[in-house]
Amino acid sequence: MADQLSGLLFPRSVAVIGASGKPGKIGHALFSNVVTSFSGPVYAVNPGHDELLGRPCVPTIAALPEPVDLAVIIIPAQLVPDALEACGAGGIRNAIVISGGFKEVGADGAEREGKLVEIASRHSMRLLGPNCLGLISTQVGLNATFAPRGAREGEIAFISQSGAFCTAVLDWAWKGHVGFSHFISLGNKAVLSEEDFLTAFADDPRTRVIVAYLEGIADGQRFLKTARAVTPQKPVVIIKTGRGEAGARAVSSHTGTMAGSDEAYEAAFRQAGVIRAQNVEELFDFAYLLARQPLPKGRRVGIVTNAGGPGVMATDAAEREGLEIARFTEPTARSLAERMPAAASIYNPVDILGDARADRYRDAVNLVAADPNVDMIVALSAPVAILTYAELGTILADVHREHGKPVTCSFMVGEIGEEADAVLRDAGIPSAFDPARAVRALAGLVRYADVRGTPHKDQRTHPVDREGAASLLRAAARKDRVRLGVEAMDLLEAYGIPVARGGIARSAEDVEPLLQALGEELVLKVVSPEMSHKSDVGGVRVGIPAERAAEEAWQMLHMARERFPEMPIDGVLVQERVPPGREVIVGMVRDPTFGPLIMFGLGGVHVEVMGDVAFAVAPLVEGEAEALIRRIRAYPILRGVRGQPGVDINALVEVVERLAQLAMDFPHLLELEANPIICYPDRVVAVDLRLTVSGEDG
Amino acid sequence: MADQLSGLLFPRSVAVIGASGKPGKIGHALFSNVVTSFSGPVYAVNPGHDELLGRPCVPTIAALPEPVDLAVIIIPAQLVPDALEACGAGGIRNAIVISGGFKEVGADGAEREGKLVEIASRHSMRLLGPNCLGLISTQVGLNATFAPRGAREGEIAFISQSGAFCTAVLDWAWKGHVGFSHFISLGNKAVLSEEDFLTAFADDPRTRVIVAYLEGIADGQRFLKTARAVTPQKPVVIIKTGRGEAGARAVSSHTGTMAGSDEAYEAAFRQAGVIRAQNVEELFDFAYLLARQPLPKGRRVGIVTNAGGPGVMATDAAEREGLEIARFTEPTARSLAERMPAAASIYNPVDILGDARADRYRDAVNLVAADPNVDMIVALSAPVAILTYAELGTILADVHREHGKPVTCSFMVGEIGEEADAVLRDAGIPSAFDPARAVRALAGLVRYADVRGTPHKDQRTHPVDREGAASLLRAAARKDRVRLGVEAMDLLEAYGIPVARGGIARSAEDVEPLLQALGEELVLKVVSPEMSHKSDVGGVRVGIPAERAAEEAWQMLHMARERFPEMPIDGVLVQERVPPGREVIVGMVRDPTFGPLIMFGLGGVHVEVMGDVAFAVAPLVEGEAEALIRRIRAYPILRGVRGQPGVDINALVEVVERLAQLAMDFPHLLELEANPIICYPDRVVAVDLRLTVSGEDG
Repeated sequence: MADQLSGLLFPRSVAVIGASGKPGKIGHALFSNVVTSFSGPVYAVNPGHDELLGRPCVPTIAALPEPVDLAVIIIPAQLVPDALEACGAGGIRNAIVISGGFKEVGADGAEREGKLVEIASRHSMRLLGPNCLGLISTQVGLNATFAPRGAREGEIAFISQSGAFCTAVLDWAWKGHVGFSHFISLGNKAVLSEEDFLTAFADDPRTRVIVAYLEGIADGQRFLKTARAVTPQKPVVIIKTGRGEAGARAVSSHTGTMAGSDEAYEAAFRQAGVIRAQNVEELFDFAYLLARQPLPKGRRVGIVTNAGGPGVMATDAAEREGLEIARFTEPTARSLAERMPAAASIYNPVDILGDARADRYRDAVNLVAADPNVDMIVALSAPVAILTYAELGTILADVHREHGKPVTCSFMVGEIGEEADAVLRDAGIPSAFDPARAVRALAGLVRYADVRGTPHKDQRTHPVDREGAASLLRAAARKDRVRLGVEAMDLLEAYGIPVARGGIARSAEDVEPLLQALGEELVLKVVSPEMSHKSDVGGVRVGIPAERAAEEAWQMLHMARERFPEMPIDGVLVQERVPPGREVIVGMVRDPTFGPLIMFGLGGVHVEVMGDVAFAVAPLVEGEAEALIRRIRAYPILRGVRGQPGVDINALVEVVERLAQLAMDFPHLLELEANPIICYPDRVVAVDLRLTVSGEDG
Repeated sequence: MADQLSGLLFPRSVAVIGASGKPGKIGHALFSNVVTSFSGPVYAVNPGHDELLGRPCVPTIAALPEPVDLAVIIIPAQLVPDALEACGAGGIRNAIVISGGFKEVGADGAEREGKLVEIASRHSMRLLGPNCLGLISTQVGLNATFAPRGAREGEIAFISQSGAFCTAVLDWAWKGHVGFSHFISLGNKAVLSEEDFLTAFADDPRTRVIVAYLEGIADGQRFLKTARAVTPQKPVVIIKTGRGEAGARAVSSHTGTMAGSDEAYEAAFRQAGVIRAQNVEELFDFAYLLARQPLPKGRRVGIVTNAGGPGVMATDAAEREGLEIARFTEPTARSLAERMPAAASIYNPVDILGDARADRYRDAVNLVAADPNVDMIVALSAPVAILTYAELGTILADVHREHGKPVTCSFMVGEIGEEADAVLRDAGIPSAFDPARAVRALAGLVRYADVRGTPHKDQRTHPVDREGAASLLRAAARKDRVRLGVEAMDLLEAYGIPVARGGIARSAEDVEPLLQALGEELVLKVVSPEMSHKSDVGGVRVGIPAERAAEEAWQMLHMARERFPEMPIDGVLVQERVPPGREVIVGMVRDPTFGPLIMFGLGGVHVEVMGDVAFAVAPLVEGEAEALIRRIRAYPILRGVRGQPGVDINALVEVVERLAQLAMDFPHLLELEANPIICYPDRVVAVDLRLTVSGEDG
């Protein structure tokens, strides 16, 4: 894919279709950006000129003297399809459509966009846009945008679904000297989308971190797969907006009630190793450090300060961010004791006092940075007259270079701190007024170090009776059933999920033959997939002696048919009565973006009242089912508390994995919930089930 | 109190004891700051000169020509007590001791500090410090600090326990044009502390917001009382560091285990209406807006943007901060529809598109600001060529002035946004690159509006048998008992807390007379205050038929004495068996700073495993006990879920209040936990108790 995108990202020649010589027109802004920035051949296509801004101008695409690597199209929307066709016919394989007037303006535009997709596909073209700001590739010096600002060279590859955010970031980054390897405005993502660029940038040696602003993802499964492959190589930091959007989805289970679109994004990002930024400040704080500094070996931070208060602030922030305050080794403690004044605090945070000059600061930071128990350093300084920030900046740059550990700093000053800007910028060390921000940036590094430290795992596939499950679902489809209940327990069984023994009696006479091996006490459940809360309407009877089972079953059928004449009543499930245990819920809903979203939670009040649930997107790779189970707050209850034994976590892990496998294998399963699954120290068993299938497929 | 501090905060004349003419010395930096800033009479006290920096210099304090309003002392620590004495003798009533070398350097220093306290008390002097940076009062133009930067005039009163943080804030605030009414470095707080200044600033007409950096509070009860009185008048925003400090405290209950020092601060701040900032950025974002803008009438925010992406970011942030996205009234929607282009989004956030010029921006913001459903406005702008930020700044300043509603903005640009700085600053409108930050600042205003909207409540005092409780505790003290258990249930009863009926049998023969009115089934509990987990060691038997009670009690006594020969075994509590209900825990620990810290949580796994507890500092004013109960995540369970009835919340509220009253009345109750209290729809009843008393008092 990187090779496939090389013509787009590293073109050797560019044509601008719709280039203009009139200042104030977008076609002029873009063309002049290209001309000014790019050293390779540049052509304008515009019927009115022979030359524009000193470059050759031809009247048509066909008249171009060579098939350029990249065509940038900036003409009225209705003319774009023909232009793209001409590009394809002329052997041009990469195009950016800047023009708007496509999907974003309604049905007409969507149809027009469809044409672009068809043309691009027919000519095997890589197409960025339409409706975008363009792209910048600092390695070939190309600014193919109409933004007033270009980008400085750097190691951050930036991808944005919002053109406005692109211009905002360009302007802001210029002021802050933040550099980019690539800068991509995705536009409508008709052909190329974030996944293509993630893959390309993973292989780009200049790119050290990939940053994206996304409002939505078209194909969640593709994103998950791509990001899983990329994040072990390069950090990916994303700000995904639209957290609150309530997915319009019919729900009939707890899983459905709890699962929103943001839960799916959150789960997918976590599983894929994507670092999610909460806001723009975090996005670039994380990106800057990931681009410029090495990863820490652990999460232990050493703090050096010339004032107590800021040291405490940094310590608080470290705790909040899940970092550890390093404990120095004995030699470090000894050296600090020898070389710092008696009133200094030689424990972490090291307070070298307000009368510290540059030499003491250098000494202290060097000792702390050299300590094997210190993985990264935060250096703080309140304004003092005896120390310049220029000196301090140099010290930190030296320490950073010599020890190869991450360093951030908080210079708690205004203008006088600016004298350190250049030296810190060269060293890649960020400085913030707020010590908490200096610490939080390090936490971003640690988050990525954790991602890098997680060995690659494959999906665990269990042996299942897929054909058996398929024929069960086909049978349901033949009956036009959309909702299924306990009668579908065989589906779980086909996928190797232990279920309580039992069988369905359609009349009182059916009960007797079922009683073998079900024990002396039974549970009876009315089988009616449309009945939502069986227990509440007398549809469940527990602890029925075997000898009374037939009589009770008859009563239940009678009652149900009388009370709910409009509901199909299929019979009564005669089920073994399993002993009490911990109840859990494993569910699945099909997220519109990511597909099968698996939910796990404890039964009783935990899911319904406390909302204590966790989500993961299937397919699950090894370890993810267990991580899902561990993520609920009530996990200690499953592990065993107050002298009570824990439950069989491994068996539960397998149930989750098998259920995820079922969800992957049958895309027309829309929603499914095994509730409850009863857990014991040595096994688990599902005793009830609800599911919804789409009518489309059998 | 404000009057008491007026000589310190608004002095008409100042003497600097230890003023120096030598640049580089602190005594010079401070004296020259005073001379440069202050227009009233200024004297130097220094035996070596007749004049310093053009002001009269006298050799001794006694030689001062007038008893100045304020003496600033900056001489070696060992000379300070005599100097302070001389000030007091000379009729000077306000002093700042800048010098260090007191409590912060150990026992010697602490003794010296004690002398200062004694001298100040004897002469009724207001003393700031020692070991501080000094103070600035912009209203009288006095900079009595040795900081290199002064402060601009403004409406923020700033109090800091860290001198270094003071210099940092001064330098940073100068650059950002943030102004102060008062700027106080507290130092060691030997005499004056944050409470004194909170009270003084509450009455200062120039101060609109009080901001404090605190590392600790000496007298939590005094702080709580003071802050409760101040926050209805003026917003108080505090950054309290040292969140993680693990209080070294012996614990013997769940309450003790869960209660850390930070829980107490968090509870006290909430109860007092103090807005706690998480970090420095938040501290000043909140402070700036509280100082410069009116309070919103509600939490509904109207967003205007010229780009979709930033609008979504602001919407996300609003949800995260607990604000609401306003729904416009019909006239607003109609006007927007009429006046904005067809492609604009006229719903909130209003996206007026990237081609919006100043007139469209002004139109849209005015319409949104005029809507009665909009309580505050966030204006966003990505960089566009057709709109200058200077224009935009003027529009927002006008809108802010005309509509009297809070306005913040995010100009997502770099340098080109600076052209709006001056006009925005004059209008008191903050601007941030990150839309999330513009929204968060508004959330600070809403937090304070909530505080202001809470009517003042008094402590609810219930009729109790205080003397009865006292005599019970005296009896325990006579037996040298530090820990008490079920035998102390009468203490709860004395305070009107319903307890299960029962009595203590010291031998099998005692059981019979107790059985009246206890019902047919009983609970027996070994009475041994040292026994921690009675149930685990067979010290509790439940459901014993009345006729077997004597026999079982005898067995239990026998077992306990045999198994725990070293423990005092007082007998067996014979208790009615109350029916099952919801179990809750109400506890109290004495926090070293705040005193009685009340804990509430649900029994079972909720407290121990899920950590689902809430805290409040006693005394509780009306409504706080209920707020405490509502604050746990599991509160819906108490209110009633899944068709089960709720519990008697009012009865529970009263139990909490009565227990808080008990804790206030008996300061030597160190720890107390009623666990469980069984709750029913119509009543609650305590069935077990553990408490710890200090040996000091009966």
